[in-house]
Amino acid sequence: MTTPPDAKSTDPKRLGLMQGFPPAPEKTVRFDNDTSWMFPNTRWSFSHQRELSPTANIWRGSGPVHTFQKALRNDLDAIPFTTMDGRALTWEQSLAENYTDGILVLHKGKIIYERYFGALEPHVPHVAMSITKSFTGLLAAMLQHEGVIDPSASVLHYLPEMKGTAYADATVHQVMDMTIGVKYSELYTDPHAEIWQYAVAGNAKATPKNYTGPDTIVGFLETLKKEGAHGEAFAYKTCNSEVLGWIVQRAAGTHLADLISQRLWQKLGVEENAYIVVDKVGMPMCGGGLSLTLRDLARFAEMMRHGGAFNGHQIVPEAVVADIARGADRDHFAKSGIETLKGWSYRHQWWVSHNNLGVYAARGIHGQAAWIAPGANLVISRFGSHPTAANGNGPLDHVSLPAFAALAAHLNG
Amino acid sequence: MTTPPDAKSTDPKRLGLMQGFPPAPEKTVRFDNDTSWMFPNTRWSFSHQRELSPTANIWRGSGPVHTFQKALRNDLDAIPFTTMDGRALTWEQSLAENYTDGILVLHKGKIIYERYFGALEPHVPHVAMSITKSFTGLLAAMLQHEGVIDPSASVLHYLPEMKGTAYADATVHQVMDMTIGVKYSELYTDPHAEIWQYAVAGNAKATPKNYTGPDTIVGFLETLKKEGAHGEAFAYKTCNSEVLGWIVQRAAGTHLADLISQRLWQKLGVEENAYIVVDKVGMPMCGGGLSLTLRDLARFAEMMRHGGAFNGHQIVPEAVVADIARGADRDHFAKSGIETLKGWSYRHQWWVSHNNLGVYAARGIHGQAAWIAPGANLVISRFGSHPTAANGNGPLDHVSLPAFAALAAHLNG
Repeated sequence: MTTPPDAKSTDPKRLGLMQGFPPAPEKTVRFDNDTSWMFPNTRWSFSHQRELSPTANIWRGSGPVHTFQKALRNDLDAIPFTTMDGRALTWEQSLAENYTDGILVLHKGKIIYERYFGALEPHVPHVAMSITKSFTGLLAAMLQHEGVIDPSASVLHYLPEMKGTAYADATVHQVMDMTIGVKYSELYTDPHAEIWQYAVAGNAKATPKNYTGPDTIVGFLETLKKEGAHGEAFAYKTCNSEVLGWIVQRAAGTHLADLISQRLWQKLGVEENAYIVVDKVGMPMCGGGLSLTLRDLARFAEMMRHGGAFNGHQIVPEAVVADIARGADRDHFAKSGIETLKGWSYRHQWWVSHNNLGVYAARGIHGQAAWIAPGANLVISRFGSHPTAANGNGPLDHVSLPAFAALAAHLNG
Repeated sequence: MTTPPDAKSTDPKRLGLMQGFPPAPEKTVRFDNDTSWMFPNTRWSFSHQRELSPTANIWRGSGPVHTFQKALRNDLDAIPFTTMDGRALTWEQSLAENYTDGILVLHKGKIIYERYFGALEPHVPHVAMSITKSFTGLLAAMLQHEGVIDPSASVLHYLPEMKGTAYADATVHQVMDMTIGVKYSELYTDPHAEIWQYAVAGNAKATPKNYTGPDTIVGFLETLKKEGAHGEAFAYKTCNSEVLGWIVQRAAGTHLADLISQRLWQKLGVEENAYIVVDKVGMPMCGGGLSLTLRDLARFAEMMRHGGAFNGHQIVPEAVVADIARGADRDHFAKSGIETLKGWSYRHQWWVSHNNLGVYAARGIHGQAAWIAPGANLVISRFGSHPTAANGNGPLDHVSLPAFAALAAHLNG
């Protein structure tokens, strides 16, 4: 495998991607021929998802914007650290290394660092990828707290359509923590992996010629077959988040875009509307369709760090946040074999470190992250367009996790 | 032809359109099977365009919202008038008659009347249809005023790609005022009309199986052939607005979504972002792709009534507004034979009445309108989902134009 060109040489402005009216054919990024998924085109498309797919608005409401205080620091760029594979880098070098599109650091609630690269601007939403799952999981946990969703209930209680599928004998709790035995491959390098049918069904990928598979998210979920047992091991599979999102919407009687708007976006004082990709019948992609701005992701994460309180509202019950931060079964998680996340667990669609800083995170492929470190009074929101889409963020984690830890130590020390 | 069901019985909430997770098949409105274009589904889809097509954001900026003063009046509903076909109605009756989705009346700059029906809400953008043209035309006129666009120049000066097309011997001025001789039919009832290829190319309609025509707006425009002479008669053809939008973007070096944002939306103090449908290479549909809220359309129209000044800014040069309000050649217009608009003209993509109130308007099929009556200190913004998509708004005009005139007389009298 050849080494991809670096962040600087793949800057979409430098490359001239989608510049000109119309852009030249070799500079054009299209959804219908899948070039929008090809690196380095992703360096443009990840900041322009709504120009490629149908989307539902996540309205911020009409209230005032919450304004962050700033206490910008110049000492972060030089922070040294060693990557998991033994290379010496500085914080600043880590940003280019990870094809960062934007990164914002909050310390004690104030912005101490904020950078934008490539196609991203402060007011422009960027794809959140699987950070979407953590929104879906949080809403599910809130509904559970309210008694609207029963975690011990069968999936069939909410979704009788799932009779005959892998989920027929699963509980909502197992879906939330992803301990489902289901035949579903997320191996992006395998053209036969189920992830591709899911992407087509969810309007995230163009429909191939002569495609005869399911053309909606629900239609896709109804094809899933059991493989292995439920409740025994964590297995990271996006189909679980879609099943959970379906349960959430059915139980709440509300579209996920409206739930995020009503319960989070209208209370957080966000700067911008967010949006979510919808399928051909208007159903949102609950496992990966969200786009939002870097600052608004930071507001969301800071709310979590404060036990659900932010902008003058108790937005999420403190018990719900504590339940997530506490994590889940680490033995279940260890069976997934994610080498960069030894000792972690996965709770309500959040990644929990169980480390001495109490770190937990929302994470998405290609470098999307909301990293919350209560023990360092620290929140990092980060968007990227790394060429590799590894499950568990392997290649990125080799750099990011030591970099984030070094930053926390620097601020604490 | 059978009479379509009335506004009340086609209320999308009453019909249950797109309700449920997922909605039942018979309640589902889809883009890929063209059901989103079928009445009564349009009563839902016209307030949900972004959930059906890729769109570019038109950012409102981060400035404060301009707040309208309110002076609501209860006497408007009972205003009587006679339709062009001789029926006695009241103002209130006219709203249902025209399948109104929203209507807002400003008198002397204050909101005196505001109603929402069906799927529309104050913060939800609605399709503007050909009101989009008036935005494109206004921006072209502003660039002309600044010397960036020369109206006497050949289209080929800006768009050498149009060599060999109907536009090879046309001037920018002829495009702006739609006096182009081009083979292009906008007859929606004719399945072979060019409007359908345009809709496919512009991502407003699903691509039919085995379609081999152009798949981008520019590709479509390059197929257009001459029919008749230029500069002799007004002929309402949307392809002209697309050519104009292409010229505007090429000359300004800026996407139409960004031009509207920078020059209008960030200055007007609008409440919400607007958006515009983009084609498969990101080019906006300059002849019909805009969606915006009812109040923001009213702000835009009120700015025009004030000679371009609004919200503390001279947003559009007064001379540009005056040029539009003055109108164009009425003899050219008369040749188009639009029976409901006798004595009118078409200037810079705006409809000009030449009546005693100085009325001029931006208009779109199915009932979209920004109606400006300087002589009555009156602005009306209106969205609708009338089942008929007649060119020139014929069926709607039989009701609307007398209703608007009666309202102006009532307020003046």
